[in-house]
Amino acid sequence: MSDTIEQDAYGHVDVDQVELSAELVEAASVASHDVAEYALWLGDDSLVLAQNLGWWISRAPELEEDIALGNIALDLIGHARSLLHYAGAESDRTEDDLAYWRDEPQWRSAHLFEQPNGDFAHTIARQFIAAHYLFELYSALMESTDATLAAIAAKAVKEVDYHRDHSIQWVLRLAQGTEESRRRMITGLSDLWPFVEELFIDEPLIDRLEGVAVRPSTLEATVLAAMLPVLAEAELEVPRGFISSGGGRRGDHSENLGPLLAEMQVLARAHPDAKW
Amino acid sequence: MSDTIEQDAYGHVDVDQVELSAELVEAASVASHDVAEYALWLGDDSLVLAQNLGWWISRAPELEEDIALGNIALDLIGHARSLLHYAGAESDRTEDDLAYWRDEPQWRSAHLFEQPNGDFAHTIARQFIAAHYLFELYSALMESTDATLAAIAAKAVKEVDYHRDHSIQWVLRLAQGTEESRRRMITGLSDLWPFVEELFIDEPLIDRLEGVAVRPSTLEATVLAAMLPVLAEAELEVPRGFISSGGGRRGDHSENLGPLLAEMQVLARAHPDAKW
Repeated sequence: MSDTIEQDAYGHVDVDQVELSAELVEAASVASHDVAEYALWLGDDSLVLAQNLGWWISRAPELEEDIALGNIALDLIGHARSLLHYAGAESDRTEDDLAYWRDEPQWRSAHLFEQPNGDFAHTIARQFIAAHYLFELYSALMESTDATLAAIAAKAVKEVDYHRDHSIQWVLRLAQGTEESRRRMITGLSDLWPFVEELFIDEPLIDRLEGVAVRPSTLEATVLAAMLPVLAEAELEVPRGFISSGGGRRGDHSENLGPLLAEMQVLARAHPDAKW
Repeated sequence: MSDTIEQDAYGHVDVDQVELSAELVEAASVASHDVAEYALWLGDDSLVLAQNLGWWISRAPELEEDIALGNIALDLIGHARSLLHYAGAESDRTEDDLAYWRDEPQWRSAHLFEQPNGDFAHTIARQFIAAHYLFELYSALMESTDATLAAIAAKAVKEVDYHRDHSIQWVLRLAQGTEESRRRMITGLSDLWPFVEELFIDEPLIDRLEGVAVRPSTLEATVLAAMLPVLAEAELEVPRGFISSGGGRRGDHSENLGPLLAEMQVLARAHPDAKW
């Protein structure tokens, strides 16, 4: 009974999960410990960002935007599920185990993704940076020698390409809108910019995953080359000043991650044996 | 500039909106006052339910369920947008005007949709009733002599058909799961059942829309005939007792709608001239 239901639910809810599972079986692919850790980095980035974005689903300034941000959040949860599914195989944990049962120091997301929604312009600034980073990351990861990561990246890159377009339209619209919307866009961008740098730090793990992982430092030039013309068109200056030292990949997080995880994990933890 | 952006955003975000607009133009279809009121009923039902469901996007007990409930919420916002777009044409208001600038007594949703999320089983009970009702409603509305309503219904019916399946799977899973999940499912169903009746009341407006609107009383038998076998399979009794007198179609709402609208409307109202 339970099996049939599960399969029905999978079939309807997320066909990609089924496809991914098939790939995992074919590629005999339980990730090595290092690959699992890398998949965790990427999965955590997406899941944390998705949780932040989900907040907007009943609060965006337009119904259309409710749908747009909601869709982006759901895309990211989809990427996170695939990545955490892969990350968990090595230690026999499901994606739900990883999402709901790890405490803050065990999370590997970069600080950008856990930055608060702020006002709408802050959310858009975060999206602008995140989507540009993720697009270049997944574009490069499609060439990974790890077939599972390459497959996940090939699917995700199409979706983050749309997220990138979405953020660009809004950066332009807010920067060139009213005086108020421009002021907010400038503030949002300057509040989020300090978290760009961490995305390009080569942690020691990367040295052990030559050909498998994308070396973060190699993405910096392309990500900036894609963002800067948009800022120029919007007549926005590249923010200068404080640069966050990051630490997310080692489990050092800002004060923002704890409450976000608490909200996300409370129901699953309240009913650990509920067998939903 | 603004025009281009708008079009881009439409194209990416919600192609249906563009298609619908084309239909509206072709059918020379500004709704009459009565038809607009009817479209408002249906649009409000979907939008209120979507706002409730959106709450789950970072709180469901499984990542898969985050995605499923999020997708259902976004489908419903899509239906609401189309219906409110059509409803607003008569009075030269946009769907955003109707969503963000009407106060509680001007909302026409039935009480079922504004009932609180409660625990997960309450949400599923509400989904079970709502999706069965909406499926039969849209199935019948496809035959409407109003071409716009018929077109909206033809699109929506496919999506609520999936919502119906989703809710059935969960009713069975919870009712046949653990003792705790069964207890919760029974409570959820009995708390939501009093709001079934209002869905089938023929308000005076319906008499003026023969052939255009679906007569609510004609749906009762088919909706119950679809739900009862599921309850039987789940070994759940049909709840008896208190029946809500409703009043939503006349703007009489429970204490639940006010806070829901407040949360949904706060950002748009805080920046009325923001031109997002």
